[in-house]
Amino acid sequence: MADQLPSWTDGPAKAQILEFVRSVTEPGASFVPAADRIAAFDNDGTLWCEKPMNPQADFLLRRWEETAQAHPGKAKEQPWKAVTEGDQAWLAGVLAHVPELTRGVTEAYAGITVEAFERAVRAFFDTARHPVLGVPYTRLGYQPMRELIDLLTAMQFEVYICSAGGRDFVRAVAGQMYGIPRQRVIGSGTTLEYRHGAVYRTKGVEQPIDDGPGKPVHIWTRTGRKPLLAGGNADGDAAMLRTARFGLLIRHDDAGREFAYDAGSEKALAKAKERDWTVVSMQNDFKVVFDL
Amino acid sequence: MADQLPSWTDGPAKAQILEFVRSVTEPGASFVPAADRIAAFDNDGTLWCEKPMNPQADFLLRRWEETAQAHPGKAKEQPWKAVTEGDQAWLAGVLAHVPELTRGVTEAYAGITVEAFERAVRAFFDTARHPVLGVPYTRLGYQPMRELIDLLTAMQFEVYICSAGGRDFVRAVAGQMYGIPRQRVIGSGTTLEYRHGAVYRTKGVEQPIDDGPGKPVHIWTRTGRKPLLAGGNADGDAAMLRTARFGLLIRHDDAGREFAYDAGSEKALAKAKERDWTVVSMQNDFKVVFDL
Repeated sequence: MADQLPSWTDGPAKAQILEFVRSVTEPGASFVPAADRIAAFDNDGTLWCEKPMNPQADFLLRRWEETAQAHPGKAKEQPWKAVTEGDQAWLAGVLAHVPELTRGVTEAYAGITVEAFERAVRAFFDTARHPVLGVPYTRLGYQPMRELIDLLTAMQFEVYICSAGGRDFVRAVAGQMYGIPRQRVIGSGTTLEYRHGAVYRTKGVEQPIDDGPGKPVHIWTRTGRKPLLAGGNADGDAAMLRTARFGLLIRHDDAGREFAYDAGSEKALAKAKERDWTVVSMQNDFKVVFDL
Repeated sequence: MADQLPSWTDGPAKAQILEFVRSVTEPGASFVPAADRIAAFDNDGTLWCEKPMNPQADFLLRRWEETAQAHPGKAKEQPWKAVTEGDQAWLAGVLAHVPELTRGVTEAYAGITVEAFERAVRAFFDTARHPVLGVPYTRLGYQPMRELIDLLTAMQFEVYICSAGGRDFVRAVAGQMYGIPRQRVIGSGTTLEYRHGAVYRTKGVEQPIDDGPGKPVHIWTRTGRKPLLAGGNADGDAAMLRTARFGLLIRHDDAGREFAYDAGSEKALAKAKERDWTVVSMQNDFKVVFDL
């Protein structure tokens, strides 16, 4: 039989994944009917590269620059001020400035239709390049994870993305990058409003956001299920992984081929053994990282 | 070729439906790829009988009675008071008492897991009978609509329910009644909270509710699309129908086999011609109503 995960090194992670998939799809005590096979994957750092900054942050920074240039008044307020002044320290700590960040995110594309937003996202992906690797972001999905998605799909799993990042941002490329149709992308979003036949983005944020304890809530509201298999890489994925029968935790330990960092994943890594999650070392378990 | 809609009378509504489905699935100017074929149906009065009260109202009234009996203090407050006293006038006008109704709905099953709620819903459907027709509610889906769902599914549409009623209430029977898997049920819901591996119902209401202008918003957040075909029966479905390429509006005009009422649908019916919606007369277009 052909190797279904050729970009994975033969080792414990690959073996555990294949054994789990076999156990739920072949007759036996662990069998799960096809209709109940749901898998959910985080996106940033689990399916695509999120360093030195995730693509959505790049997309937003470019928009803030445009806005500051078009509206000089804005350039005196955060977050537009930091972009205008090149204030890397403020931007590096942007997650500590929640009100300014939220305002910057929701105002960036408020008042336009969801279709117009998608065109802006598509234009970004068509032109932007990763600042270190120099290729389009759409080529920076992890090849081994794409193979895993394809394997699960072939085994009649319905595979969802469950991203703390923007649902409508990821939808624009989920088909191309992962073979996942747009209706199976779950994520955070701005509030929306219907008027005269169209759906518009507004300035609020849908609650809860799709991170941490919000992930199992989003998966329930969208699918009415707990995932059979879930994959993540960060503390914000721990709740989702805990609700799954099989949890994968991607560890970024490959400074040569990608980026090495445990920051933001310490709690999840510390819990991995107790929760029986399969930790995937990108250095040891990924034969290739990107399909470049 | 076999008649794909045998419970529909041969007439303009059936002909328009079949012609639309043909036009988007066969090669030609109107062809739509299978991956983009989404259909959305309202539930109350579109897929199942909602008179003299919809099944979820029956479910709630029973719960309010139980609560009032178990907690006599509650029986002094609305809506529990009305149930205790058999105050039909108050209950008939319950939609005018939004704060009391909302409190009654959200408190009814707050604090329990989504799985425990589903068991309560399942127990209701296993025992309750329609007050006039005397059969389980699960037998009161409209047979012609079930055939339409099956036809669309066979033509590779992904068919969603988009209900103003409770998403998790409908999910419990959507597979059995309509062949629609639980992840394709969109609807209103209480707010949810994740704790220690489980998802609990809480006392809030997810915003927007899935009615009126909330329907296109829900369909977008869940599917990232506008529906190719949508079906409804009431004013609260008009926004959803307007976003669809083909809109079906079910008219309840069959007092003999079901119930005859236009109340709550007047605006949608008045707009049907201008919007080019296909109005389905239950009396004239449905050869059979229920599969009893």
